[in-house]
Amino acid sequence: MNGWRRAIPALIGAGLLVGCFQPQWTPDTAPADPTPPIQSLLDNQAEAWNRGDIEGFMGGYERSEDLLFTSGGNVRRGYEATLAKYQKSYVDADAMGHLTFKLLDVRAIGPQGAIALGEWKLTETPREAEGLFSLVLVRQSEGWRIVHDHTSARKEE
Amino acid sequence: MNGWRRAIPALIGAGLLVGCFQPQWTPDTAPADPTPPIQSLLDNQAEAWNRGDIEGFMGGYERSEDLLFTSGGNVRRGYEATLAKYQKSYVDADAMGHLTFKLLDVRAIGPQGAIALGEWKLTETPREAEGLFSLVLVRQSEGWRIVHDHTSARKEE
Repeated sequence: MNGWRRAIPALIGAGLLVGCFQPQWTPDTAPADPTPPIQSLLDNQAEAWNRGDIEGFMGGYERSEDLLFTSGGNVRRGYEATLAKYQKSYVDADAMGHLTFKLLDVRAIGPQGAIALGEWKLTETPREAEGLFSLVLVRQSEGWRIVHDHTSARKEE
Repeated sequence: MNGWRRAIPALIGAGLLVGCFQPQWTPDTAPADPTPPIQSLLDNQAEAWNRGDIEGFMGGYERSEDLLFTSGGNVRRGYEATLAKYQKSYVDADAMGHLTFKLLDVRAIGPQGAIALGEWKLTETPREAEGLFSLVLVRQSEGWRIVHDHTSARKEE
């Protein structure tokens, strides 16, 4: 009995070692710069668009009902509604034309979020236009994904 | 000497108690719903606008050079540039007219961030218009502040 009781402090000591040295997530750790993966996501989107692959282009978006896409005063909710709208508006590669993106600014929103501002330009199509986009991205298990897109066309003020 | 050595496990045990019961910040704690403070911020902004108080309206924005404001294909960087643009575009209360906001959706981006989508409508002014806005907000020491605003006017698609 005395031997058993003597072992208790040693067991507690072992517990302390485990408790002290377990890795802790510290909220003030500087997150990795999200700019390179976001630039890469936009590059992949533009490449997909320019080979006429709307579903490939849509791969940059969160595949959920929570996705919000806003353009021209209209709101589409959810991945499927956004995809359907693109497929209806751009029936083939000729209608899609050539898309370029230019990333202007990225700001981290906590360790798992980011906001990106950029310019878009669509050429080689009757729907030629250009403007700006604001994207909110969240780092998910499969990588960064766009969860909110507000796209607008340039006009005179 | 033997007594001193016997005290070591007790000291370690005390350390364990301190280690186990210190409050730990857990990153997966559900953050408080940001909708009420964001609704309140928008209400305050609209009230300030409707009494002709542009600086009061601007109180909802982050007072820094990092603020990004996008409207009509133009980008303004920083609080001062955004304020100056508003003051130039809306010289008095008659030009400002009556502003209403309708919040459509709020999504938390981590514990300190949020994205808000809403409708804006400006009446009782020659500059009557309506459209949508996407706001990225960050909870700062003084409260939630808009750090990115993408505003667009409604148009036919």
